[in-house]
Amino acid sequence: MTLPTLGLYGLGTMGSALALNILDNGYPLHVSNRSANVTKDFVTEAGPLAEKLTSADSLVEMAQAMPAPRAIILMVPAGKPVDDSIEQLIPHLEPGDVIVDAGNADFNDTRRRTGELESRGLAFLGMGVSGGEEGARNGPSIMVGGTDSVWHGLKEVIDAIAAKFDGAPCAARLGPDGAGHFVKTVHNGIEYADMELIAEVYGLMRYGRDMEPAAIGEVFGGWNEGRLQSYLVEITAEVLAAKDSKTGEPAVDVILDRAGQKGTGRWTVIEALRMGQSASAIEAAVGARSWSAEKGTRKAGADILGFTRGSVDLTNEDLEAALLAGRVVAYAQGFRILKAASDEFEWSLDFATIAEVWRAGCIIRSSLLDEIASAFRGNLPEGQLIFGDDFAELLRSTMPALRKVVSAAALSGHAVPAFSAALGFLDTMSTARGTTDLIQGQRDRFGMHGFERLDTGETGQHGPWWD
Amino acid sequence: MTLPTLGLYGLGTMGSALALNILDNGYPLHVSNRSANVTKDFVTEAGPLAEKLTSADSLVEMAQAMPAPRAIILMVPAGKPVDDSIEQLIPHLEPGDVIVDAGNADFNDTRRRTGELESRGLAFLGMGVSGGEEGARNGPSIMVGGTDSVWHGLKEVIDAIAAKFDGAPCAARLGPDGAGHFVKTVHNGIEYADMELIAEVYGLMRYGRDMEPAAIGEVFGGWNEGRLQSYLVEITAEVLAAKDSKTGEPAVDVILDRAGQKGTGRWTVIEALRMGQSASAIEAAVGARSWSAEKGTRKAGADILGFTRGSVDLTNEDLEAALLAGRVVAYAQGFRILKAASDEFEWSLDFATIAEVWRAGCIIRSSLLDEIASAFRGNLPEGQLIFGDDFAELLRSTMPALRKVVSAAALSGHAVPAFSAALGFLDTMSTARGTTDLIQGQRDRFGMHGFERLDTGETGQHGPWWD
Repeated sequence: MTLPTLGLYGLGTMGSALALNILDNGYPLHVSNRSANVTKDFVTEAGPLAEKLTSADSLVEMAQAMPAPRAIILMVPAGKPVDDSIEQLIPHLEPGDVIVDAGNADFNDTRRRTGELESRGLAFLGMGVSGGEEGARNGPSIMVGGTDSVWHGLKEVIDAIAAKFDGAPCAARLGPDGAGHFVKTVHNGIEYADMELIAEVYGLMRYGRDMEPAAIGEVFGGWNEGRLQSYLVEITAEVLAAKDSKTGEPAVDVILDRAGQKGTGRWTVIEALRMGQSASAIEAAVGARSWSAEKGTRKAGADILGFTRGSVDLTNEDLEAALLAGRVVAYAQGFRILKAASDEFEWSLDFATIAEVWRAGCIIRSSLLDEIASAFRGNLPEGQLIFGDDFAELLRSTMPALRKVVSAAALSGHAVPAFSAALGFLDTMSTARGTTDLIQGQRDRFGMHGFERLDTGETGQHGPWWD
Repeated sequence: MTLPTLGLYGLGTMGSALALNILDNGYPLHVSNRSANVTKDFVTEAGPLAEKLTSADSLVEMAQAMPAPRAIILMVPAGKPVDDSIEQLIPHLEPGDVIVDAGNADFNDTRRRTGELESRGLAFLGMGVSGGEEGARNGPSIMVGGTDSVWHGLKEVIDAIAAKFDGAPCAARLGPDGAGHFVKTVHNGIEYADMELIAEVYGLMRYGRDMEPAAIGEVFGGWNEGRLQSYLVEITAEVLAAKDSKTGEPAVDVILDRAGQKGTGRWTVIEALRMGQSASAIEAAVGARSWSAEKGTRKAGADILGFTRGSVDLTNEDLEAALLAGRVVAYAQGFRILKAASDEFEWSLDFATIAEVWRAGCIIRSSLLDEIASAFRGNLPEGQLIFGDDFAELLRSTMPALRKVVSAAALSGHAVPAFSAALGFLDTMSTARGTTDLIQGQRDRFGMHGFERLDTGETGQHGPWWD
């Protein structure tokens, strides 16, 4: 298969890193950017790599300069900028050309764009890229959605630029159209939950055990040698160890506790809800970020309500085990959403492959992912990650610590929404007889909604309150 | 103002109850239904009330038989049936006529329909009706969205059929177009959370204190004389007291623990998320219902994970206080969503009026709502219900019990997602210095997202890990 001419539009942080990565792997590349001086700066930055680089002053000039067949990678903000770029490109493309959206698109947009471009004889790939700037530069995790033939036309390049795990590229075509962007969205949802769990552990150590950031960082550093080994635990250790260069204070202490979000966590939770699911640990993380923005309200609340955070009797081992259990729930809920989407959109997602693609390059990379891939290749009762032999064993051994953490936090006034959500999920999913029988009774009583009888299986039954 | 001719289409449970209510109040009414024999049965059922009743075999025939100006109430399933009915009606209506959607519409649809009908010189009211069949028959709570003049044309009838609280009708125009349906959606979201909290209390008593349903029902009955006085607590007592007529067992014991949902709870949570909010207690309730549907998975989980529910050392007073705190959070989160929507859509919602409309007729009616109305008419720091004098006092006194309940449930394996969510919200909203400083540090470390410095207020700052 001849490789198409490669072009990349959008030389921001992620775009320029990805462009350097492509050049580094020996592929010639055309580039352009909305403002042309960014392109000039990029050519300078590329240094010796600029040899195989062709720059253009605009997207259209770039497309015109590229011999067909073309593959044009868009690395622009999600939404309108992507649509605008596609619209500009269309008159200058011909059958066989492909547009690759490498941004954080809403998968619904990717599905729509795929349909629109295919109806014009053009091709489209929705490509989720994770790993931040470092990943984009040196090897990100790449989640592709699109037709198999289009994927094969670009596989060589994508495999080359992707992160490697034991030599295997962390890149795959996961399904048609929006599948890649959907998987990337869920990746980010899991990332939100994992970060919130880590922040809750930090809070318990800092305000419940009076530990200094550097000391907490050392604990995280130690955990990174064990079963919690992961990029997020690694950088947490680094962030907590860091001193602010201006004041000499712990870096974390000069940062306003108001977290930003770009929407992928929220999308994950909304999609879960839309499909009749709940991604409660991810919701807790999204909620924690949203509420963190209400700094004034929280200050007023501290004064008015007067609740304070007390000390907690929790060991490092308790927190390590609870974090492991919480992390497993974050992954498990993520894969449950992927299953629901795969069923709804008939994507036939291969969950083991997804776990493998996440083993290196991306933000949630962790040693657990290799175990998750194995679990999905093995026997999973009810398709649930938490029921796989190794994970059930892990949960049985960590559950006492998770219970202890939630209990101690509740009694001492530390908000641990993500840990609580993880525990609620595990306790619900292991309770054969829940309490929604009462809810069905209430619904029948006030709204004649009817229920199913346990003994006979008859549906549409009404309670004696109607006799 | 002359009253328009009234028509009602859709004689299901809610529609026929509402029609009888209208007739009972002395207003002549035209009715019709998709299948005409339902209409015939209704006329028979109406008995002496049929005197002022005119029935038609179809919606169009009904409209043709009605002298202008007409007000046609649609009581059909949300979605396509509403659009279909409107489309059928349009050719037979004239300026001055109004269509009233009294179903559980998605407020986005109501906004769209209002625009479409107004552009044709017709009028539209989106009318949320709560109270189940009993309410619709004897006086529901009515939440109206639409233009003020259209509302005034129908106010007399709507006030007449609505529930009364101390003589005041529980009906109001709350804002333009989708405002009424949005408020009804949030009402249902609060209802979900309140029901889940009650079910969690039931679970702790039943499986953690080994109490029989009838005994638990008695406790709820007692609570209904106190600060928890409410329709949902009242019917919970009734449902728990009831015996199945076939087996003589407690009624709740013959009901499959798999809860249904029609979507309004989910919509509430999705809208909250879309607006950058979190309605965590409502999300917990939606999640609990969704997961309850996975009966097979839960059974497998009980075997595989082997977690069991142990006894809890909680008194009735603990549970009563915790339920009160949880209920306050359910309301508070509901009003926070209303505030966000009011800001986004410029509805100028009057929260005190909304609380007043909910004081009688609807499912969430409770003695707290009168206090909530007063709180919104008084001084509310940061606009937060939980910071009003009376509610802050209530939370300070109930918080120890809420902590105890969440802690005991966590240690003993009872899933209490709604209580945990309520506690997490309260602890977050009273913590001036949270833990998202670490999250901002992580985000800057992996994605160069930047943060705001606490000391100088400078934004877009980067940590020493980039030096």
